[in-house]
Amino acid sequence: MNILLTFRILGAMLLFLAAALLVPIPFSLYFSDGATGVFIISSLITLMTGVLLFLGCRSNKELSVREGFAVVTFGWIFYTLFGALPYLLSGSIPNVVDACFETMSGFTTTGATILQVIEGLPESILLWRSLTHWIGGMGIIVMSLAILPMLGVGGMQLFKAEVPGPTADRLKPRIQDTAKLLWGVYVLLTSLETGLLMLGGMNFYEALSHAFATLATGGFSTRNASVAAYDSAYIDWVITAFMFLAGVNFTLHYHALRGRIREYFRNEEFLFYLALTVGVTGILVFFNQGTTYSSLLQNLRYSAFQTTSILTTTGFGTADYETWPVITQYLLLFLMFIGGCAGSTGGGMKVARILLLFKHAMVQLYRLIHPRAVRLVKLGNHPVDREVMQAILGFFALYMGIFVAASFLMAASGMDVVSAGASVVATLGNIGPGLGSVGPVDNYSHIVPFGKTVLIACMLLGRLEVFTVLVLFFPSFWRK
Amino acid sequence: MNILLTFRILGAMLLFLAAALLVPIPFSLYFSDGATGVFIISSLITLMTGVLLFLGCRSNKELSVREGFAVVTFGWIFYTLFGALPYLLSGSIPNVVDACFETMSGFTTTGATILQVIEGLPESILLWRSLTHWIGGMGIIVMSLAILPMLGVGGMQLFKAEVPGPTADRLKPRIQDTAKLLWGVYVLLTSLETGLLMLGGMNFYEALSHAFATLATGGFSTRNASVAAYDSAYIDWVITAFMFLAGVNFTLHYHALRGRIREYFRNEEFLFYLALTVGVTGILVFFNQGTTYSSLLQNLRYSAFQTTSILTTTGFGTADYETWPVITQYLLLFLMFIGGCAGSTGGGMKVARILLLFKHAMVQLYRLIHPRAVRLVKLGNHPVDREVMQAILGFFALYMGIFVAASFLMAASGMDVVSAGASVVATLGNIGPGLGSVGPVDNYSHIVPFGKTVLIACMLLGRLEVFTVLVLFFPSFWRK
Repeated sequence: MNILLTFRILGAMLLFLAAALLVPIPFSLYFSDGATGVFIISSLITLMTGVLLFLGCRSNKELSVREGFAVVTFGWIFYTLFGALPYLLSGSIPNVVDACFETMSGFTTTGATILQVIEGLPESILLWRSLTHWIGGMGIIVMSLAILPMLGVGGMQLFKAEVPGPTADRLKPRIQDTAKLLWGVYVLLTSLETGLLMLGGMNFYEALSHAFATLATGGFSTRNASVAAYDSAYIDWVITAFMFLAGVNFTLHYHALRGRIREYFRNEEFLFYLALTVGVTGILVFFNQGTTYSSLLQNLRYSAFQTTSILTTTGFGTADYETWPVITQYLLLFLMFIGGCAGSTGGGMKVARILLLFKHAMVQLYRLIHPRAVRLVKLGNHPVDREVMQAILGFFALYMGIFVAASFLMAASGMDVVSAGASVVATLGNIGPGLGSVGPVDNYSHIVPFGKTVLIACMLLGRLEVFTVLVLFFPSFWRK
Repeated sequence: MNILLTFRILGAMLLFLAAALLVPIPFSLYFSDGATGVFIISSLITLMTGVLLFLGCRSNKELSVREGFAVVTFGWIFYTLFGALPYLLSGSIPNVVDACFETMSGFTTTGATILQVIEGLPESILLWRSLTHWIGGMGIIVMSLAILPMLGVGGMQLFKAEVPGPTADRLKPRIQDTAKLLWGVYVLLTSLETGLLMLGGMNFYEALSHAFATLATGGFSTRNASVAAYDSAYIDWVITAFMFLAGVNFTLHYHALRGRIREYFRNEEFLFYLALTVGVTGILVFFNQGTTYSSLLQNLRYSAFQTTSILTTTGFGTADYETWPVITQYLLLFLMFIGGCAGSTGGGMKVARILLLFKHAMVQLYRLIHPRAVRLVKLGNHPVDREVMQAILGFFALYMGIFVAASFLMAASGMDVVSAGASVVATLGNIGPGLGSVGPVDNYSHIVPFGKTVLIACMLLGRLEVFTVLVLFFPSFWRK
């Protein structure tokens, strides 16, 4: 581990954050919300730390795999620590643990909030809150499509070949090229949604905030009642559509924009994701019809919204699904484990992994009947490398292990059985709302600081595909 | 698939069941409970069907792997259908689904009951109920140590080498030898426990019934309040000890009886199982002290009993753990997934599989840091075969998949979130009591017939290590 090089890169990353902290300032001035100074000071502190780290830690070594792990994990942690400054300095969230929870929830695109009342906070603070989502989402696209596959994390190598741009051995050129191409798509979709939401009656500030949160599959809203506050079928459907798009591998969007729309339907993960969205929406409609909703159109609108919101791990709310039939709640709970497609901004275990787990199990069954037959797990028409498959199976075991351990800690912090489990699924899967006391109309403010800290760790672990964080706990990682 | 040969073997198995159905008769006569005729008729029906199948289906082919699968799965189903006769004919359980539920629960050593009142039923019927556990346990020991390893099911090949007796390629001689050796141990331990329970004040009928249920890790009791009815520290500790023994690989007991007691402590699965039992008991004692219990001795007694009862998947009750602190309930819920050691009568996913999953995950993490290093998953000092490891990972995926699908169906049948999930864990893991409406002081009678049928399937799937049942659903299994 080259610690100096790691800190140097982290310093450079803080310079970008310092720039991002200036974005809310025009909004602060426009709304005269009194938080302008807060952002200037936050940006300066971040800038100075960044410069100190960048200039103070010199290293002429090349970036290797180990520093890659450290940069990714500490990058998210540093961003959380400095990104929490505006909440703390403005007094919007005076408690440090709470402020870190909200910021980590933002950058990991989780969307779990400790705020009991959202409306009334300075507009620029709420815009910053949504912006943390958007920045996090940006980071995730590049991380999941360029960095993690190279680090060999949890089967993400599967997506190495899918990324446009040159295939270089060294991390830097590939990351830069990938970033440019995919962020273009990201910015385009965000602008498009902002425009469409403004057509639906939102002002620019609200439209932009919600577009930030949608494309990042985050879920922070500027309203107490989340998207339900607008009570507009048009807005619901626009957000449903963009949540769905945000849950798709961004490489596919890139191809589509280049005219290769067929790529969507050649991608097995996308097809499974589409089937899952349509299938679960159908089941929810079936069970909600006549029980929760009498109008089929309204039923479809709310069922599709909740399905997409949970599957893509966005977590926007238009309905309190805890009042829906139990079976629909169960279905949503399971969706929380699945999450979006690999290479999207969505969290969870990822559709591709679930698909491959299922295929692996089928191959095992097939082998029992035909012990001498050779049958490989395939995705699309390509056989999946044995190493990749093992990484995915290891990921599944670790994910479940963390779920068990963290739920246990949450129960120890005094939560009931359902809420303890649901709070972990909702943060580990980067969703936001769960069930029980952390359901769609509740928030995370009532949890004790110990519990909040556990959930902060869950958000980070889930976002960084578990492996990336856990390798840092191996003593041999730190040895020269 | 040779269907004639399969039916011939099933016929032979029914002859054994017909003999077993005569066992309760002396008890019926002693207690004059009026059920003597019921057992005679049940035995005759079973005998006649057995003879018809055995003589009617002739085949001079050797038993192959495919018939092995069919015999195991249909063996349990046939035993359930004919074993339910005494309940139906005596009117103790007049409903067919209920009677099949109770019998499947018996033969799979689950111990989930649909009986609301147990005391007052004919003694011979209750003895039969406990005997189904014991017969099932007998079948499981041989199945898990001799049959399944040869069929290559879910990583059970791991235990091929551990079994005493000749290693033959053909199923029959090996099964017979293994059966003789291990059933000797099983009978010995059962007799010992019966004796010890009688010293604690139970009569022979009660002591035998509870010993049957303990050694099989079943959990049926002759009392409404389960073991709590005796309110005796001595009885609690005797049962705790024997539940613990029943959760151990019976091969180790065989070695121990031959003087090789050290084998226990050379066996990594046993050591992990021991650590788990002691560790969880310790945690329960910690959280129960001062909250549930004020006396440490009493706390230890109840905490150790519940830990062993749940981990070994027995399901006897001495305390209503749903009134314990939430964290202890959570811990018990997770234990339900783990279960006993492979080659024991315990259910669940088995300690060895959990241990290997954890090790696999660690190896994956290690590989990220040392991509060129070769590190294999080991159990004891032996590297685990890649095929075996893949089967275990496939098992884990399937087990979780079935848990998800079955919980969904239980929620559809109208149960609440906790009870739907817990009822599946408790039956799939062959435990018995769960949480919520199927908690330790409740029963399964209130579930609708559809839900009971789902749970019957769960008991069978869990008991036969999932794979054994699922292969039958492949069309290619049935082709010549």
